[in-house]
Amino acid sequence: MEYYSKQINKLIEELSILPGIGAKSAQRLAFHILNMPKEQVRGLSQALLSARENVCYCDSCYTLTDSELCPICKNPSRNSHMIMVVENPRDLVAYEKTQKYEGVYHVLHGAISPMLGIGPGDIKLKELMNRLQGEVEEVIIATNSSLEGETTAMYISKLIKPTGIKVSKIASGVPVGGDLEYIDEMTLFRALEGRVEL
Amino acid sequence: MEYYSKQINKLIEELSILPGIGAKSAQRLAFHILNMPKEQVRGLSQALLSARENVCYCDSCYTLTDSELCPICKNPSRNSHMIMVVENPRDLVAYEKTQKYEGVYHVLHGAISPMLGIGPGDIKLKELMNRLQGEVEEVIIATNSSLEGETTAMYISKLIKPTGIKVSKIASGVPVGGDLEYIDEMTLFRALEGRVEL
Repeated sequence: MEYYSKQINKLIEELSILPGIGAKSAQRLAFHILNMPKEQVRGLSQALLSARENVCYCDSCYTLTDSELCPICKNPSRNSHMIMVVENPRDLVAYEKTQKYEGVYHVLHGAISPMLGIGPGDIKLKELMNRLQGEVEEVIIATNSSLEGETTAMYISKLIKPTGIKVSKIASGVPVGGDLEYIDEMTLFRALEGRVEL
Repeated sequence: MEYYSKQINKLIEELSILPGIGAKSAQRLAFHILNMPKEQVRGLSQALLSARENVCYCDSCYTLTDSELCPICKNPSRNSHMIMVVENPRDLVAYEKTQKYEGVYHVLHGAISPMLGIGPGDIKLKELMNRLQGEVEEVIIATNSSLEGETTAMYISKLIKPTGIKVSKIASGVPVGGDLEYIDEMTLFRALEGRVEL
């Protein structure tokens, strides 16, 4: 049974394809949009279209950008001899926000997952190896601390080791401000293993 | 500091104006959209634009629709002598889903709220009174059970009483499947007040 007129149904249906937006949220969003100023809706509609049409991979690090090279790879003050490997552009941004990392990145766009049938050939791994032909001093692996992320980290480190380039991995441990009581056993174990002398 | 290229920033910014979508969700949505097939993004962009351009109020009940009359007002098998007054089109749909109501609706598009400066003139109340000139037998008030909804219900009933048309209000009480222990005092009190003989 159709409760709405055709155009409203169509809008709700299109909004429901977005991640984390179920039928109820799509309905709420749709009515909000129908009450927004026309100009604002045009802006949103245009931004969607234009971002999707113009955004591509950075030629060097494979993050998403709208020019040949992303702002980070273009920046001459970044240390291009140090590459941090991340799973996706959001992880890159997470590290950028720390304002403490001065090297460049490499975005894999995924992680190896035998369960989901994602193999080394399905992520930007060949592209990473190609970059190592240049003058790279260190590769810092910053994949997620999940099964897939760890598998990917292991795989990459085995691949790079023979080249003699230094490979490191960001530390696992108790998050800053974390209350020990609420932290899982695996993290506590890792924090103990990775303890540093004071 | 800008972490993304211009077009991605613009998309994130436009998505953040939607209700319930904060900076983090907008970022997640944006990257999902950038990975969607172009055809799908075009569909979404088009649905937004076209819904906003073509959707208007139903000439009779003021719900949102894309033709002069909404499907419910157009339907000759609905009882047009019985009008259920709701705050917004989502409430109308909630009652439609019960498939038990055979009358028509009137959508107020809001509720009286002195706090927010919304008076009787700011909702579709005059339009409701105009409809009562016709052959109406009963007005069922189904505004929300909030302070604003109750105020609006009271106001409408006072307005209609002198016309001699029957005015009723949907029952307050314990929701079906509700566990008494978790229900607020006000609802329990209303349920007691509105008890029905068995």
